[in-house]
Amino acid sequence: MRNIKLTLEYDGTHFEGWQVQKKGHRTVQGEIERALFKIFKKKIRVIGAGRTDSGVHALGQVANFLVNSRLTVEEIQRALNAHLPPDIVVLRAQLASERFHAQYSVESKTYRYTILNRPERSSQLRGFCLHDALSLNIMRMRQEAKSLLGRHDFRSFAGSNPSKEERQKPRTTIRTIFRIDIKRMADFVTIDVEADGFLYKMMRRIMGTLLEIGHDRLPKGSTKKILEKKSLAAPVRTAPPHGLCLVEVKY
Amino acid sequence: MRNIKLTLEYDGTHFEGWQVQKKGHRTVQGEIERALFKIFKKKIRVIGAGRTDSGVHALGQVANFLVNSRLTVEEIQRALNAHLPPDIVVLRAQLASERFHAQYSVESKTYRYTILNRPERSSQLRGFCLHDALSLNIMRMRQEAKSLLGRHDFRSFAGSNPSKEERQKPRTTIRTIFRIDIKRMADFVTIDVEADGFLYKMMRRIMGTLLEIGHDRLPKGSTKKILEKKSLAAPVRTAPPHGLCLVEVKY
Repeated sequence: MRNIKLTLEYDGTHFEGWQVQKKGHRTVQGEIERALFKIFKKKIRVIGAGRTDSGVHALGQVANFLVNSRLTVEEIQRALNAHLPPDIVVLRAQLASERFHAQYSVESKTYRYTILNRPERSSQLRGFCLHDALSLNIMRMRQEAKSLLGRHDFRSFAGSNPSKEERQKPRTTIRTIFRIDIKRMADFVTIDVEADGFLYKMMRRIMGTLLEIGHDRLPKGSTKKILEKKSLAAPVRTAPPHGLCLVEVKY
Repeated sequence: MRNIKLTLEYDGTHFEGWQVQKKGHRTVQGEIERALFKIFKKKIRVIGAGRTDSGVHALGQVANFLVNSRLTVEEIQRALNAHLPPDIVVLRAQLASERFHAQYSVESKTYRYTILNRPERSSQLRGFCLHDALSLNIMRMRQEAKSLLGRHDFRSFAGSNPSKEERQKPRTTIRTIFRIDIKRMADFVTIDVEADGFLYKMMRRIMGTLLEIGHDRLPKGSTKKILEKKSLAAPVRTAPPHGLCLVEVKY
């Protein structure tokens, strides 16, 4: 058996997230497994680095699967791209070591949130950025984001997971954020967050908080205060999914 | 009556071009006139700088209309953006002089054609660029494009217009191209063409030719030869519309 690592790009607009669900739900994992079935004529399970939510995009999602085949990785990539729908693309297929696991081997993941910060909405990028017509206080956002850097219990920024199975696992809510970069380029504001892992909805709830801060609606020190609550009931907004994109996974 | 000038952005994917057609055809002009009807409760005709084809986008289309109203231009812009569908945005509304005509007053229009030049297609920008997996010889494209600069009879690059009315008007096919910029940025190649006007399908037929040149499928001097044919029957390919965008109109 060979272990194949895929680097994937997708437009999350018309997917109900990464993870396979019940029949009738279109998911990224489901489409990839369907394409693999067409190519190899058997059911192959695909493991993804991050279970992106419904509507969340990817420019550098990573996945792996085991297969017994003589096809080269280039042939596998071409066959997948030929069978996948237009909103998923395999950017790279590589042979990985036996022990490589797209989820467990992760060193860090980087998510980017994109905001179009101008009075007018965008006609062409409407599915890939949050439109915010109000002015954003970037300096305050940067200042408050500093409290999130490092190793913390991020329970306050976690959404309660709808999956019963997930809720029942006693898991740690401690994560480490390595980097938060907030940049303005013309009318766009991008926020990159690199961490060793993200809790369910953590990135969108951090964004919801940073947006409130950017609008001067929360006092100084709010991020630290929310963090210290360590409570799922913390009063935190969740930013919409379409501004979010998984840009890189490091191993 | 006040003359209002609009600067417009749109995603052409789900439009059958700019110009109003028979009922049941969704057009940009039609949607703007529908929004104006909702705001001013009367039929107002909108004139566009360029009649973009079905599937062609705009980042800087210009239009004008006459209206008798006390609303400020800012109020008109906001009202239009509130009534227009998500794939059209009014970037600016300005008061223009009585004599301003979005089509006849044009000094130059700039169209941009965008090519994604890498082996893999794009999942997120698939509606806004032509995917070309073959390597493009940019130097040759630039060299051959030079023959198109200046004042020429571009009949060879015109497509026959499907509208009977348009075909019957005895019109000149002489146009002046001021500028052709071919740039590579990472995996993208953009081709900007600025001219005093474009014949029907002229930009897409120039692109079709430049792509053939980029693939080394036409001999040196081909562009000049095609131009000198001055014939609607010139053997010229038409590049697909979704890579094309009207980026600027100057007056």
